[in-house]
Amino acid sequence: MSSFDFASLLAPGLPPAAAKWNGLAKYSFVGGNNDPDQVPVEALIKAMSDVLTREGKDLATYGLASGPQGYLRLREFLAQKLKRNAGIACDAGDILITSGSLQALDLVNGIFLARGDTAIIEQECYQGSINRLTRLGVNVVGIPLDRGGMRMDSLASALADLKRRGVRPKYIYTIPTVQNPTGTILSEARRHELLRLAREYGVPIFEDDCYADLIWDGKRPLALYAMSKGVGVVHIGSFSKSIAPALRVGYIVAEWELLSRMLAIKTDAGSGALEQMVLGEYCPAHFDSHVSELTRGLRAKLETMMDALNEHFGTAAEFDDPKGGIFLWVKLPDQVDTLKLYQSALAAGVAINLGPEWSVDKSYSRSRTRLCFASPTHAEIREGIATLAEVCHREFGVPARIANVARG
Amino acid sequence: MSSFDFASLLAPGLPPAAAKWNGLAKYSFVGGNNDPDQVPVEALIKAMSDVLTREGKDLATYGLASGPQGYLRLREFLAQKLKRNAGIACDAGDILITSGSLQALDLVNGIFLARGDTAIIEQECYQGSINRLTRLGVNVVGIPLDRGGMRMDSLASALADLKRRGVRPKYIYTIPTVQNPTGTILSEARRHELLRLAREYGVPIFEDDCYADLIWDGKRPLALYAMSKGVGVVHIGSFSKSIAPALRVGYIVAEWELLSRMLAIKTDAGSGALEQMVLGEYCPAHFDSHVSELTRGLRAKLETMMDALNEHFGTAAEFDDPKGGIFLWVKLPDQVDTLKLYQSALAAGVAINLGPEWSVDKSYSRSRTRLCFASPTHAEIREGIATLAEVCHREFGVPARIANVARG
Repeated sequence: MSSFDFASLLAPGLPPAAAKWNGLAKYSFVGGNNDPDQVPVEALIKAMSDVLTREGKDLATYGLASGPQGYLRLREFLAQKLKRNAGIACDAGDILITSGSLQALDLVNGIFLARGDTAIIEQECYQGSINRLTRLGVNVVGIPLDRGGMRMDSLASALADLKRRGVRPKYIYTIPTVQNPTGTILSEARRHELLRLAREYGVPIFEDDCYADLIWDGKRPLALYAMSKGVGVVHIGSFSKSIAPALRVGYIVAEWELLSRMLAIKTDAGSGALEQMVLGEYCPAHFDSHVSELTRGLRAKLETMMDALNEHFGTAAEFDDPKGGIFLWVKLPDQVDTLKLYQSALAAGVAINLGPEWSVDKSYSRSRTRLCFASPTHAEIREGIATLAEVCHREFGVPARIANVARG
Repeated sequence: MSSFDFASLLAPGLPPAAAKWNGLAKYSFVGGNNDPDQVPVEALIKAMSDVLTREGKDLATYGLASGPQGYLRLREFLAQKLKRNAGIACDAGDILITSGSLQALDLVNGIFLARGDTAIIEQECYQGSINRLTRLGVNVVGIPLDRGGMRMDSLASALADLKRRGVRPKYIYTIPTVQNPTGTILSEARRHELLRLAREYGVPIFEDDCYADLIWDGKRPLALYAMSKGVGVVHIGSFSKSIAPALRVGYIVAEWELLSRMLAIKTDAGSGALEQMVLGEYCPAHFDSHVSELTRGLRAKLETMMDALNEHFGTAAEFDDPKGGIFLWVKLPDQVDTLKLYQSALAAGVAINLGPEWSVDKSYSRSRTRLCFASPTHAEIREGIATLAEVCHREFGVPARIANVARG
């Protein structure tokens, strides 16, 4: 309650006010949080101590001694990591370090998008990407996915239809490798077709590879940026999923014509130096071994979640076994409205992501939910899914019988 | 040179592309860089090691265990620091941690400003604040300063004039304590008058206190936020000047009605955790003693710069002895165009800030320059100012005689 009239001075069209933060749910299956026990704390402390002992005085200078594109040693690590893991041929000059991949989204959107523009995205898509486009007043065209990722037949007809209407989309946004929320990986054949269609219609590809490090068999496909030799593709990534989300370090790989435009609107005097320094010091020696250990642990948690869903939901919960990532995209019976389920589940201490928030097709996603398994313990996953099943049974009559009741 | 036509897809009205970074000038008197020898490297390493050993696992969670307003221990330190040093009565719930005070500027602008709005600022003002308002399409009214800071007579007539024209400004932006670039400190009497005028016209005050820790005699005046009990005032600050600019940690103090709006547009999933954790651990024990040592060193560098200016420019360089900060606002003879001087000086290895970039009155500021003394060594300050004097003499005939020539 203000004793000054601020309300009449607020800009028009602001999003609703944020609610006060009330902590995490007892069983939290939301957000991109990761496994606390997998944060390489000791090695990060060692790396931080080494790099600060050697270069700590550089903190007195904006951008350290590396300029506005970000800490040079980190960009050099990324250049060879992306070459080794994703086939991308680039050097430190082609990389811009950002404050998480969310700032990367803002910078790419910032140089391309104006109100009334059109962007093509995957029909099921990261909530933050959908929300950004909505706030920017951009017309979104969603392309359905199947188990092979974005459907190229649908993309081809969408591009043809837009061309008929005289609309040139600003980009095709895709999360090709461990897609969010479906967990699919776009096949190599579809990647070639996607690049061909993008070239044919003169539309750039915006490739978001923020989950691409987390693949069970470690076989990350060639990035679209690699297959196109960088022509007509902007590539972004993040350390949030591979090291720790709270670090807020992401990156953009693009040609200088675009990076120079993004730098001009990146008016933050550089992203956080400590995060960049510690990753630049830690990653060259530890990144690959850490990620393979992390993914083993994530795979085990995924199996616990799939087992719990099978035990407590039976056939009422449909899902595919994803090839990587930190979440499961689950289809519940049609009578389940996940918005209603969300509220009752939260009251029971279980937080889930609503399907409609991860899709531009609200009816298709109405009975779907995204369940993240990285952050809770195995026990919390089992208890949380059991609780969710009880709430779902109580509210919607599905699953028909509750396993742990049946056991009683 | 792109083999894809991106140019036709770029959004309209983008700022010019950034130039490739070429490193710092040999004698750099620009930007907010600080003294490398004053970065408390050892203590920061100790703090980082302690906090990560205790709480490192929290890096797996966005916002740590503290939620979107930022690391709780840092907000708690800020609450008692602001109480002790600036008289501000607030608690952790009234504080939002930001990625430097630049994000604080963006969030405050984001909730108040729309194209065509009017904002009142100090005629000489931080370049980044002026540029933001220009990009947002906001009409800027500049209020002249004198040695006492913003002139209240000019503010009163500006507010009256705007009211006559039916314009209610969105805010009055001020850097009251160690103003950038003039280095002035707004007197207590003027602070009372500023608050009275703001109340009378129903205009909020946007108080930017990012330099307020760096005062030679340590006597920081009461913040406007403190004098108004927070009513009608938004307060922002930063650790860039007091600890290290590369850390990128700033903060906003405001009532929840405003913070809840800012949180809704702060879509970065939190600011960098390591910076917040290390400051939350380091500051409670070390902040005050570090800052008093830092300011002693800055004062010594200021004296070296003033001596060098007197020696090499004589009466051709006019300036007041500022009560704190990291820069000197210098008036050169009217025939000196600092834009021309900037280019010749840079060619000679000396970087200076252009008066016109720190002012909304281009003719008033045409012969003025902002010289930062924090980052160069005492020797670099002496050599850089001598070189600047030679360039200025060569280009504009002032100073009439060059001291080191006269000595020859």
